[in-house]
Amino acid sequence: MNVDREQISKTINNAIENASTRAVRGEVASYIPELAKANPQKAGIAVTLSSGDTFGAGDFEDQSTIQSVSKVFTLAMALGTVGDGLWSRVGREPSGSAFDSILQLEHERGIPRNPFVNAGAIVVTDEILANYQPKEALGEIVRFARSLAQDDTIHIDKAVARSETQTGHRNRALANYLLSFNNLRNEPDLTLGVYYHQCALSMSCAQLSRAGRFLAFGGGLGTGGAQIVAKKRAKRIAAIMLTCGHYDGSGDFAYRVGVPAKSGVSGMILAIVPNVASIAVWSPGLDKQGNSLIGTQILEEVVEALDWSIF
Amino acid sequence: MNVDREQISKTINNAIENASTRAVRGEVASYIPELAKANPQKAGIAVTLSSGDTFGAGDFEDQSTIQSVSKVFTLAMALGTVGDGLWSRVGREPSGSAFDSILQLEHERGIPRNPFVNAGAIVVTDEILANYQPKEALGEIVRFARSLAQDDTIHIDKAVARSETQTGHRNRALANYLLSFNNLRNEPDLTLGVYYHQCALSMSCAQLSRAGRFLAFGGGLGTGGAQIVAKKRAKRIAAIMLTCGHYDGSGDFAYRVGVPAKSGVSGMILAIVPNVASIAVWSPGLDKQGNSLIGTQILEEVVEALDWSIF
Amino acid sequence: MNVDREQISKTINNAIENASTRAVRGEVASYIPELAKANPQKAGIAVTLSSGDTFGAGDFEDQSTIQSVSKVFTLAMALGTVGDGLWSRVGREPSGSAFDSILQLEHERGIPRNPFVNAGAIVVTDEILANYQPKEALGEIVRFARSLAQDDTIHIDKAVARSETQTGHRNRALANYLLSFNNLRNEPDLTLGVYYHQCALSMSCAQLSRAGRFLAFGGGLGTGGAQIVAKKRAKRIAAIMLTCGHYDGSGDFAYRVGVPAKSGVSGMILAIVPNVASIAVWSPGLDKQGNSLIGTQILEEVVEALDWSIF
Amino acid sequence: MNVDREQISKTINNAIENASTRAVRGEVASYIPELAKANPQKAGIAVTLSSGDTFGAGDFEDQSTIQSVSKVFTLAMALGTVGDGLWSRVGREPSGSAFDSILQLEHERGIPRNPFVNAGAIVVTDEILANYQPKEALGEIVRFARSLAQDDTIHIDKAVARSETQTGHRNRALANYLLSFNNLRNEPDLTLGVYYHQCALSMSCAQLSRAGRFLAFGGGLGTGGAQIVAKKRAKRIAAIMLTCGHYDGSGDFAYRVGVPAKSGVSGMILAIVPNVASIAVWSPGLDKQGNSLIGTQILEEVVEALDWSIF
Repeated sequence: MNVDREQISKTINNAIENASTRAVRGEVASYIPELAKANPQKAGIAVTLSSGDTFGAGDFEDQSTIQSVSKVFTLAMALGTVGDGLWSRVGREPSGSAFDSILQLEHERGIPRNPFVNAGAIVVTDEILANYQPKEALGEIVRFARSLAQDDTIHIDKAVARSETQTGHRNRALANYLLSFNNLRNEPDLTLGVYYHQCALSMSCAQLSRAGRFLAFGGGLGTGGAQIVAKKRAKRIAAIMLTCGHYDGSGDFAYRVGVPAKSGVSGMILAIVPNVASIAVWSPGLDKQGNSLIGTQILEEVVEALDWSIF
Repeated sequence: MNVDREQISKTINNAIENASTRAVRGEVASYIPELAKANPQKAGIAVTLSSGDTFGAGDFEDQSTIQSVSKVFTLAMALGTVGDGLWSRVGREPSGSAFDSILQLEHERGIPRNPFVNAGAIVVTDEILANYQPKEALGEIVRFARSLAQDDTIHIDKAVARSETQTGHRNRALANYLLSFNNLRNEPDLTLGVYYHQCALSMSCAQLSRAGRFLAFGGGLGTGGAQIVAKKRAKRIAAIMLTCGHYDGSGDFAYRVGVPAKSGVSGMILAIVPNVASIAVWSPGLDKQGNSLIGTQILEEVVEALDWSIF
Repeated sequence: MNVDREQISKTINNAIENASTRAVRGEVASYIPELAKANPQKAGIAVTLSSGDTFGAGDFEDQSTIQSVSKVFTLAMALGTVGDGLWSRVGREPSGSAFDSILQLEHERGIPRNPFVNAGAIVVTDEILANYQPKEALGEIVRFARSLAQDDTIHIDKAVARSETQTGHRNRALANYLLSFNNLRNEPDLTLGVYYHQCALSMSCAQLSRAGRFLAFGGGLGTGGAQIVAKKRAKRIAAIMLTCGHYDGSGDFAYRVGVPAKSGVSGMILAIVPNVASIAVWSPGLDKQGNSLIGTQILEEVVEALDWSIF
Repeated sequence: MNVDREQISKTINNAIENASTRAVRGEVASYIPELAKANPQKAGIAVTLSSGDTFGAGDFEDQSTIQSVSKVFTLAMALGTVGDGLWSRVGREPSGSAFDSILQLEHERGIPRNPFVNAGAIVVTDEILANYQPKEALGEIVRFARSLAQDDTIHIDKAVARSETQTGHRNRALANYLLSFNNLRNEPDLTLGVYYHQCALSMSCAQLSRAGRFLAFGGGLGTGGAQIVAKKRAKRIAAIMLTCGHYDGSGDFAYRVGVPAKSGVSGMILAIVPNVASIAVWSPGLDKQGNSLIGTQILEEVVEALDWSIF
C-alpha cells in the first residue's frame, strides 16, 4: 500500500480533475429542502494519515452536513456505553433494501437490520438518549465529533436540522413503528429531534477525514494520539461500514472500491484504509441507491491508483 | 499481521483444541441425505502461506465435499470467460434472505442478488456451460480446482452428487424460475446436473486452503506461482466473499471474524487474508444461517490471535 | 331465504344458547387497555328486517365500541362527498396481510389496499376531514350513525378513544407513512384523533343492526324509510365488506358464512343479507385474524339455518 | 332479479353490440404461443337458466380453451373425493398478488393461498391424481365437464396443451417448490401434464354456461337435473370464486360486477347468479390483472341491467 505523500497528493488532484470533466453527476437529494440547494458541480477529497497530516484537493474545505455519516459516530458512542448489549435492539446484517424501508421491520418484529439504515440509526440515537437529556445528548455528540477531529469549530447546521424535522414523515413512521414493538424508549419526536440534529453536523472533507482517523488506526487518533475506542471495536465498526455502509449499494461499493465506507445523502462519504489513511470525499449528486455518484468514482480511482483496497 | 510460522502453528492447534471441548456444535445439514451422515465432532483447519507451505491442525486431511465453497471457483471461471458481462445476469449485493430464497427473484425479475446465493450460482454455472458440453464443463471445473490446489487427486464425490440430484426440488424451482425470466440458457436439469457435481467436489482442508491461494495473493499462486486471474479480479471476488459469502449471516461474520470467506453446508469455509494466507476450516455442524458453527469460532480465534482482520 | 319471524327468533336464541356452551372463546384484544377489560363470556345478536323490526338474543342490548365496523359508515360518508375520486387514494383489493400491516404500503407507494385495513380507513377519515373541522367531522360521523340507527342516544366512549390514542403507535406509523407519500392531507395526529373517536362509537347489537339496514335494503332504511345512499353504492360497499371485511380472514369468512360483513376488534360484526336483513353480533374473544371467534360461529349457524347465504 | 327471457335476450345482445364499438380491448395472452393467436375482436356471451334454456349473443358458439376456469371444476372434483381435508394443503384467502406469484409460497411454507392461484390449482390437480393414473385422471376431468354440460363433444385442445407444456417454466418452478415443502405427491411433470391438459379444455360460451349451472342451482343441474355436489359445497365454491376468482383483481370485479366468477387467460369468464343463471362470457383481450377486459365490461352491463348483483 502506497503512503508516499507526493504520490497521494498527485493522485487526489488527478482524481478531482478527472471528476470535473464528467457530465453525469447524479441527482441532488430533494426530499430535504435545504439539501436540494447543493451544487452538483462541487467535489472535494481529503486524506488524513497516521501522523495527522491531511492532504486535500478540490472543494475539500467547503462545509456540508454529513447526514448519515454521523451514524458511524453515534454507533461508536452507543457501543461505548452499552457495549454488545446494543445488538439486542439492532442487527448487523445488510438489509437488501432502501435506507428508509419499513418492510423488514415488520418481518423482523421491530429489530432493524443494521445500525446504518434509518430505523437502526434511530435506535442507536435512542440508546444514547438513555444516559442523557436530549440537549445534553446532542452536546455529547458534537463534543465527540470535535474531539475526534480535534477541531472545536465543528457545529450543527440548524437550518438543515429544521428542514429535516419538517419533512421527516418517513422517519416519524419508522420511529412510531419501532415504538409499537417496544424498541424505542423515548418519545419518537424527541429521539428524532436528536437524530435530525446529528445528521446536520456540518463538516468539511478535511474535518471529516480527521474525525474518521480513529477507525483507521486501531481506535486511536493515529501516531501519538489518544485511544478513542478499543482496537477490536474500531475494526468491527469498519466491518459494518463495509457490509452496510452504502445501503443497497454496499455490495457494489465493496466490489468496485474495496474499502469500508459510510455515505450520507449530502454526498459525503467517509472511507477507511486500515492502518493507512482516513478519507473523506464529497460531491452532492447521488446515484439511485442514494450514494454520491462522483464521490464514489473519485474513491474508486484513488484507491486503485494507491493500491489501497483491503482485499 | 503475524506471519511467524511457529506462532501460526501454535495458534491453530490451540484453536482446534479449544473447539474440541465445546458441547454446542450446530446441526449437520439434513436435507441432503449423504451430508446428514457427517460427524459434528470433526474439526480441522489448514493455513497456506505465499510460499505454498501449509500448516494443519485437527482433521485437516479428512475429505469432505466443499458444497457452496465451489461457487468461488466457478465465479472465477465465469468471469474469466465473459468478464463483467456476467453482471447483467446476476447482481453483487447481499441478499438479506436465506441461501435458497426465491422471494427476491420475483421482485427483481429473475436477476439473482449475487453469485453466492443458490439462484446466482446456478446462473454462473449456466454461463460456464455456454462454452462447454456438460461433461466437458464439469471436467473443466475439476481441472481448475486441481490446478489451483496443484493436486491431481481432487475429484467429485458421486454419491453426494447423486444425493443432491434426488432431493434438489428447491433448486429445480429456482432454475425453472430463472428460465421463465429468460435468465437460463440451458435445460434446467442439465445446468443443475453440473451444479450438483461442482458442489460435490471433495477436498481436505489442506487441499482447499491451497486452492484458495490465488484469492489471497493477487490472483496468483503465491511466491513464484502462475497468475490465475488478474489481481483486480481476485480482489473483487474477495469483496463479494466478504459481503455475500455467508448468506444472511455475512454481516455477522464480517463483524466477528473480519476476513473475506465463503461457507458451504458441509461445514467447509474458505477464508482469505489478503497478502498473508489462505485458510480452510471444516466442522460439519451448522448455525441457523447454514454456516459452520465451530468452524466460524475457530476462524474467529485464529484471526484475532494472529491479528489477521482486514479492518 | 327464510323470513319467518318465529323461525328467526328461534334460530338466534338457539345460536346464542349453543354459543354459551363453548369453552374456546378466543382472546380479548389486549393492545388497547380498555378493550382488554371485556368479558369473553358475553355474546349477543340482533337481526333487523326491512320493516325495522329487530329481534335480539343474548347480550344484544349491551354496549360495546364498534371499532373497525365504523369503517363501513365513514366509507359511505366519504363516497357521498367525493364519489369515485376516493379510489385514487385507496384501492379495493383484499390485502393478503394483517389489518395493521405496513408492508404493502411500501410496495404500492402509499396507496392502501382497501378502505378496511387501518391505513385505508385512515385515508377515508382524512377525506372526510377535507370538508369539516375535526370536531365537526366527528359530530358528522356521530350524527350519521344516529340517523342510520334512528337513535339519538348513540355516543362515543371517550375512555376507549383516549386509550387508543395513547397506544396507537402502529397507526401513527401508518399515518406518517401515508403522509410521506403525500396521501394524507391533515396532520397525522389530527386525522388519527378523529379515527380513534370513530372507532370508539358505542353501540349495542340492536343499535348496530338497525344502523346497518341501509346496506341491506338498497341504500335506504327499509320499508318506507329514507334513501341514505344510492342503491348501487350500497351494493358496492357490501361487495367490499365481503372481499375485505375480515382482513386476512375474509376468504375464510365468505367460505364458511357467506354474507358480506365487517368485523371490529371489540368482537362486533355487522353482517348484511341483501334484501332480507341486517345483523349485528358481538362476542369479545377474537381468532388469530382479529375477528370475533364466537360471533363468527353464531353467524355461521344462523345464516345456514335460515338459508341466508348470498351464494 | 329479472328472469324475463325477452329481457335477458335483449340485454345480452345490447351488451355485445356495445362491446363491438370499443377500441381498447386489452392484450391477448402472449406467454402461451397458441393463445397469442386469438382475435381480440371476438366477444360472446351465453346465459343458462334453471330450465337449461341457454341464450347466446355474439361469438357464443366459438370454441376457446377455458384455461383457469377449469380450476373451478377440478376444485369441485377434489372436494368430492377428499372433502375438507383439501384445506390442509391449500388455503382459501385472496392472495394479494399475481396468479403465478411464488412469493407467498415462501412465507407460508408451501401452502398456496387459494385453489385459484396457479400453485393452489396445481395442488388440487395433484390431489385428484391421488386416486387415478394420469391418463385416467384426465379422462375423469373431461368426463366431469361433459356430464356438467351434458355435451359429449367437449374435448381437450391438444395443440394448446402442448404449447403450455413447452413454456410452463414458471409453473414448473411452482410445482418443484411445492414438492420441496412436501406439498406435492406426484412427480412435478406428471401433475403439470394433467394441469396443462385441464386448462386446454375447449368449450364455447354456450357449453361453459351449461357446465356452470351446478354452481348456480344449489349443486344440481337446474330444474329436474341430477345433484352434482351438495348444496353447501356449491355455495362455498361460489364464495371462493367471488373472493379469489380474478386474482389480484377480485376485489375490483366484486365491486364493479357483483357476482361470483372465475376468469381464464384465454379471456373466458364463468359467472354465477345464485338461483337465477349461469353465465359464460368470452373475449380474448386481457386487462393488467390477466382478466378479460371486454368480457368484464359485458358482464358489468348485463348484471346491472338485469339487477343480478348478489349484494
